[in-house]
Amino acid sequence: MAMINDKLKKEILEFRKKRDWEKFHKPKDLAISIVLEASELLENFQWKTDTEVAEMLKGKSKTAIEEEIADIAIYLTYLSHDLGINIEDIIANKLEKNKKKYPADKVRGSAKKYDEY
Amino acid sequence: MAMINDKLKKEILEFRKKRDWEKFHKPKDLAISIVLEASELLENFQWKTDTEVAEMLKGKSKTAIEEEIADIAIYLTYLSHDLGINIEDIIANKLEKNKKKYPADKVRGSAKKYDEY
Amino acid sequence: MAMINDKLKKEILEFRKKRDWEKFHKPKDLAISIVLEASELLENFQWKTDTEVAEMLKGKSKTAIEEEIADIAIYLTYLSHDLGINIEDIIANKLEKNKKKYPADKVRGSAKKYDEY
Amino acid sequence: MAMINDKLKKEILEFRKKRDWEKFHKPKDLAISIVLEASELLENFQWKTDTEVAEMLKGKSKTAIEEEIADIAIYLTYLSHDLGINIEDIIANKLEKNKKKYPADKVRGSAKKYDEY
Repeated sequence: MAMINDKLKKEILEFRKKRDWEKFHKPKDLAISIVLEASELLENFQWKTDTEVAEMLKGKSKTAIEEEIADIAIYLTYLSHDLGINIEDIIANKLEKNKKKYPADKVRGSAKKYDEY
Repeated sequence: MAMINDKLKKEILEFRKKRDWEKFHKPKDLAISIVLEASELLENFQWKTDTEVAEMLKGKSKTAIEEEIADIAIYLTYLSHDLGINIEDIIANKLEKNKKKYPADKVRGSAKKYDEY
Repeated sequence: MAMINDKLKKEILEFRKKRDWEKFHKPKDLAISIVLEASELLENFQWKTDTEVAEMLKGKSKTAIEEEIADIAIYLTYLSHDLGINIEDIIANKLEKNKKKYPADKVRGSAKKYDEY
Repeated sequence: MAMINDKLKKEILEFRKKRDWEKFHKPKDLAISIVLEASELLENFQWKTDTEVAEMLKGKSKTAIEEEIADIAIYLTYLSHDLGINIEDIIANKLEKNKKKYPADKVRGSAKKYDEY
């Protein structure tokens, strides 16, 4: 139940290779693509109150959200692969950094602290 | 070497729980956060030519990029968890959909097709 | 009281010229910059409820918001100038288009319609 | 030839009023909308080299770009109006600030300086 297992990662990379699309995937354009997909994800929440979001998530719109999340994860996989970045390692590093920056006993439940996160 | 294994996913969720930050993580704000982190990732590439990007990636700036990628992946993990979405499943679904939409033998290496991707 | 009068527009363009920065302002990078500044604007609202936004707008944070809006408007001015686009003309065109697409007597006050806007 | 003259600004505000859409325009959602429109603008440049951008700008795609720029300017007008912000004033302020931060004789033509802009 990992986020992306090795078999899936391999399939993501093979999808691109079979289409000879590596040549389009310059890092800057992959970073642009992640922003664009993230915006498409956010678009599903535009103008909605918390109640309307809750309603939406019960309905068919969840599929649209799932597809945008999948797109972001796919582009993240390409960019990380191309830059030689191991996502698990950098997440673990970032968590360690955040643990020091936001000691649990100091920031617990504090909106003020959280806002400065 | 998966993107995010179960142990790491658990740590990401525990980091939030220990700080009692779940209450701030409304889906709409998580979607906003993914856009903001994606923009911070893109900022590293702003104004740069391909050559300048290549140079940057050799230097210390790679750490900044790694941290932004980690932040995006962490927020994706929170949003997917909160919405009951299994990222691996939706990526597999999206890949199947893309395979039908972009048959390898038709779109191979074509910028024209790719641009419509 | 126009958005940007001719004198101000001239100053914006001269600021860039005096620094010999036109050469960095490729349209794609200007479009990236508009997204980045828009994200910095949005960052001021991250995690905030409507009530918290109202409070923030009373305080000193309004200056931060003003600066981000100014940055977006400045980059829009550069991009429009470089592409030979008259912003007033295209806004007028877009308004006409929107008037036909959203007839006032049909869509008035409707969230449903608005959401499809 | 100002960016947005008073008559046009009035039309933009009336368009919204006639549709009773002010109630949807919470500042946070307007900020989200500016990001989304900025991303749609950027999408026109996705995957394109400088040469391909130049080609695109000769063709019919310029209309798409114009519409996105118009959308950003329209939302900026709404947000500024609602927050009681005079865009011309804040642009003038920002220019003054930038002039001090980036003295022309020090930063002229320098990519290094510009990158830190």
